[in-house]
Amino acid sequence: MTRHSTLPGEFQLISRYFAPLAKGFPGAFGLLDDAAVIVPAAGHDLVAKTDAIVGGVHFLPDDPPDLVARKALRVNLSDLAAKGAIPRAYMLDLVLPGSVDEEWVAAFARGLAQDQGEYGVHLIGGDTDSTPGPIVVAIMAFGEVASGQLLRRRGARVGDIIYVSGTVGDAALGLAILRDGLATPDEISAAFLVERYRLPLPRVALGPRLIALASATIDISDGLIADLRHICEVSDVAAIVEASRIPLSPAARAVVSADPARLAAALTGGDDYEILFTAPPAAAGSLADLAREVAVPITAIGRVTATATESHGRVSTLNAMGEPLLFSTEGWTHF
Amino acid sequence: MTRHSTLPGEFQLISRYFAPLAKGFPGAFGLLDDAAVIVPAAGHDLVAKTDAIVGGVHFLPDDPPDLVARKALRVNLSDLAAKGAIPRAYMLDLVLPGSVDEEWVAAFARGLAQDQGEYGVHLIGGDTDSTPGPIVVAIMAFGEVASGQLLRRRGARVGDIIYVSGTVGDAALGLAILRDGLATPDEISAAFLVERYRLPLPRVALGPRLIALASATIDISDGLIADLRHICEVSDVAAIVEASRIPLSPAARAVVSADPARLAAALTGGDDYEILFTAPPAAAGSLADLAREVAVPITAIGRVTATATESHGRVSTLNAMGEPLLFSTEGWTHF
Repeated sequence: MTRHSTLPGEFQLISRYFAPLAKGFPGAFGLLDDAAVIVPAAGHDLVAKTDAIVGGVHFLPDDPPDLVARKALRVNLSDLAAKGAIPRAYMLDLVLPGSVDEEWVAAFARGLAQDQGEYGVHLIGGDTDSTPGPIVVAIMAFGEVASGQLLRRRGARVGDIIYVSGTVGDAALGLAILRDGLATPDEISAAFLVERYRLPLPRVALGPRLIALASATIDISDGLIADLRHICEVSDVAAIVEASRIPLSPAARAVVSADPARLAAALTGGDDYEILFTAPPAAAGSLADLAREVAVPITAIGRVTATATESHGRVSTLNAMGEPLLFSTEGWTHF
Repeated sequence: MTRHSTLPGEFQLISRYFAPLAKGFPGAFGLLDDAAVIVPAAGHDLVAKTDAIVGGVHFLPDDPPDLVARKALRVNLSDLAAKGAIPRAYMLDLVLPGSVDEEWVAAFARGLAQDQGEYGVHLIGGDTDSTPGPIVVAIMAFGEVASGQLLRRRGARVGDIIYVSGTVGDAALGLAILRDGLATPDEISAAFLVERYRLPLPRVALGPRLIALASATIDISDGLIADLRHICEVSDVAAIVEASRIPLSPAARAVVSADPARLAAALTGGDDYEILFTAPPAAAGSLADLAREVAVPITAIGRVTATATESHGRVSTLNAMGEPLLFSTEGWTHF
């Protein structure tokens, strides 16, 4: 309850760093009021999502503050994208220890400003607080989707193809480089993988275009296998994934070639923020066109099957010989 | 990144304790999807607010978990009420240290369930995370207000009367009892003041009824004087408060009688979560009727003046002799 920080007061922080991020969104009232007003476009539903990240848990204490800000925002935009929603605005709860100085906040706000330009969103409200613990950044993101069109986890049907956008496993390997000193074949690969860990690429152009094509969607945050299981559970189906089809970046491929045991970490490590989805076989042509149009690779990695045929849980991953791969963990756990 | 807790996994926590809180709100999808859908009623705007509370900063580590939950929710509902919005739903980011056990989470969820019944809101999404630091509870609350009718901080006019709901200072004195061992004349007063600190009473019945009566509104979280200054700054006016008119509960009055120096703490301590507002003199009759109808006292405590006449900042507090009272601090600072 004491003033134990070198930071300026909350009102100075807001006027210097955060109020400028609210410009252009009338319902934010310049962050000068106690709540924000959001009006979805006619014929649209409002979609809301929140995710928090914690220093030492979801990011490393010495990660650059602008990247911490952008990651906190992007993990939420990724969820909106995977639900088919177009992002519009966000709120921010920023919980800061006394060790954080004004320079850190300035860099954090610069990161937000950069991503606001990139994704067309505005800061519309929030709260700053002090803590004796690590930094916590809680973001609540708002998007809109044509009424009733939200893409769901539920909806995968037997016979559907399983697709994933982009590449999988880069972030898990990037974290292993930062945290465990994982050696990579070359510096460029290392830099690429670390960047993929620090700065997800939410698939905001792809997601809304999957409406009417995909039967079920999720963004990969817990890990490819774990998130596919989430789809299967609520859709009451099972899945077979062919490991050899899972798209790896050249950098990830180089790491896995040197140390094949890393493949499991790549497939279960999480933090990919790609869109994992199912679609009926008839959608294949449209999906190929869409991938070209939005310039995001879409790769078929498996198929949806009936629950009853599975003996190894809902998601079976097969190697090139058709033999099941077993993982010691399916993905990130929150505790 | 390790499992350092005795808690069940996130999915068990959600299904056991949090999914039941989403029942009855279709757009929450039983917390089984990645985002929630909110559709404001026809002719209404959606209003959003977020506030986080931190263990050891906004509540005490041994506060009962159900009261921590209810306080976290209520401080947000208080903002919605002061803006004239009717609360509908909320999202929750719950950041927990390894010392928290399942019993704590169960009690926390019971507190939410109790307040959902009281305020007619539903949990529609959220996130749980581990932390090496203290508990952080971030809530984002959603309400709705007739289009364009949101009550604002801006709008106070010279000649308006300044009103406050309920009583002021109880929470600050309750905190002083818990934290500093402040002695009270009797046990009943102590229990009342501590309860007022731990469990705010958001004025949800009063707030929406102030539309068309109040010219500017805010809820008192930082302290009566500080929050009145917020209204004055954005309205570009000043205020004179008569200290003798500020409504004190019998318990607060007893404490202040025994130790008059406590009055300053009561008026600047914050955490009151009453509605502070301005209204033109012509509204006095309607406000008296409204106070009776919603059974919440409304007290006139001062008047709005022109900025230029003030020499002691925007808010002057006068004692019964008309002499200015000076406070060493105007209210709670966030750092």
